Amino acid sequence: MRALVTGGAGFIGSHLIDRLVSRGDTVVVLDNLSSGNLDFIQNHLDSGKVSLVKGDVTNYQDVLSAMKGIECVFHLAANPDIRLGTKITDTDLKQGTIATYNIVEAMRINGVKKIAFASSSVVYGEDAPMPTPENHGPCLPISLYGASKQAGEGLISSWVGTFGLQAWIFRFANIIGTRGTHGVIFDFIHKLKTDPSRLEVLGNGLQEKSYMEVGDCVDGILHVMNNTDQQLNLYNLGSHDTASVKRIAEIVVEETGCEGASIEYTGGDRGWAGDVPRAMLAIDKMLQIGFDVNYNSEDAIRHTARALIEEIGL
Amino acid sequence: MRALVTGGAGFIGSHLIDRLVSRGDTVVVLDNLSSGNLDFIQNHLDSGKVSLVKGDVTNYQDVLSAMKGIECVFHLAANPDIRLGTKITDTDLKQGTIATYNIVEAMRINGVKKIAFASSSVVYGEDAPMPTPENHGPCLPISLYGASKQAGEGLISSWVGTFGLQAWIFRFANIIGTRGTHGVIFDFIHKLKTDPSRLEVLGNGLQEKSYMEVGDCVDGILHVMNNTDQQLNLYNLGSHDTASVKRIAEIVVEETGCEGASIEYTGGDRGWAGDVPRAMLAIDKMLQIGFDVNYNSEDAIRHTARALIEEIGL
Repeated sequence: MRALVTGGAGFIGSHLIDRLVSRGDTVVVLDNLSSGNLDFIQNHLDSGKVSLVKGDVTNYQDVLSAMKGIECVFHLAANPDIRLGTKITDTDLKQGTIATYNIVEAMRINGVKKIAFASSSVVYGEDAPMPTPENHGPCLPISLYGASKQAGEGLISSWVGTFGLQAWIFRFANIIGTRGTHGVIFDFIHKLKTDPSRLEVLGNGLQEKSYMEVGDCVDGILHVMNNTDQQLNLYNLGSHDTASVKRIAEIVVEETGCEGASIEYTGGDRGWAGDVPRAMLAIDKMLQIGFDVNYNSEDAIRHTARALIEEIGL
Repeated sequence: MRALVTGGAGFIGSHLIDRLVSRGDTVVVLDNLSSGNLDFIQNHLDSGKVSLVKGDVTNYQDVLSAMKGIECVFHLAANPDIRLGTKITDTDLKQGTIATYNIVEAMRINGVKKIAFASSSVVYGEDAPMPTPENHGPCLPISLYGASKQAGEGLISSWVGTFGLQAWIFRFANIIGTRGTHGVIFDFIHKLKTDPSRLEVLGNGLQEKSYMEVGDCVDGILHVMNNTDQQLNLYNLGSHDTASVKRIAEIVVEETGCEGASIEYTGGDRGWAGDVPRAMLAIDKMLQIGFDVNYNSEDAIRHTARALIEEIGL
């Protein structure tokens, strides 16, 4: 199959491409390389299985040119920095909502029928029951990033209902692992690299979320797509438990060997305005079609800390 | 209070302004007059209680200039033609989603804290239980208009969560009544005016939806706002029952006196791609805070048919 992966040089995208290439797909990557890294997919570029369109999902012409001859789109590109949305408020509107419009519209124009979309647990907002099932409502996101993911879901479902697209929407837990380019573990390692004597943690450390290892995430995507065939398929992807930010800080301190570092909390119940302090996805639907994770939250965190320390260097 | 009503020269907006003026508010209207009509608010413009900013919600500068000194925004402006979304696919993205971003961002910049938003039953999509409660999920709209209403809700809820806005989101049933500028009754009257011998009905006529009279709608908005004070308040607004398109056609034929007209159905279970064939809102929340409608669906339809025949002329 000829697949388009937006954000294919990025964290989740590059892991997905490893799987797609190994099952025999030909892959086009659309990436602006703002947070992606060509090193992550260089082997596939060299082998000729993957080709790169260096372009931007916010530019309709770039999307249109990447879409030629594609059978299935994996739309992963997005603003990776949720906090940025509070500073430059049209970031997620452009890189999330308008970008997703460009994708589905270019699919319609080119007759491309299948799309998988990386949505997020943050669409559920703050007051959802834990664990949160796919049929929770109303979904009232509190971050601008969350609003753009919800808008992306709605655009896709309206293209399904109006133009006959077939879609898989995945609401991800916090995805972590090798090649991570952002996120809490990444940030903690960089902070300890700068100053091994202290680690500043945003919030009171009691924020508690579910973490999923990136290999599990991309295996889950492909498993669900292989085993479902509705016009619109909606699945949470996550692990069985949660970990607190305090526990993540302890693990990262331990794994970096900065045992003497003092962990200092900035206080408050959340890392920043728009941060959901507690989140855990119900994964019953995912389990029911036969997919389970290799890592639970704490294992995934330790595995990721080790890998990122290796990648970043101390 | 100084209120901004976007789409204030339009159908619902002009009725809302009647109420706002009669309770003593000063009102700024932002309207591009594309489907609105100054005649609807001319008496208020003449009295000086209402001022007009002729501008477009898709233009951020227009929104910003209308926002000066405002205490509460009633954001009603939107593309009124759902079917247009299937032809020009960025209509709802621009006039719905991006417009709503302009509104909340201009509110943030000007320190305006309160917003009421006209959302719609179409956010629930096609497979929702009937009647549909506010906590139904997942919401998977099938029209591009529905996607833009959902995106608008998400933008507003994220501005609530991130920047401290207070919001009332109303999911409307089909609103009908005097000064209607679009919709099925309006269309039927115009068709019979052109050819009194036949009435073409899109679909098989079995589409069945809940109708609410516009006076009930704007009374409901103000009642809910006067009786709720959460940071984010979400309410369905509708009547107690439904009516079929076939029944609407019969009533309009009767009221126009075109008794001999043959009603001809184009066939299919819906009027157009993206049309939800059956919709009825659960209105328990609305009833529980003490608001009820004066008209049920069929009464509202007959009342509207009579009023629009008067306005349009035969």
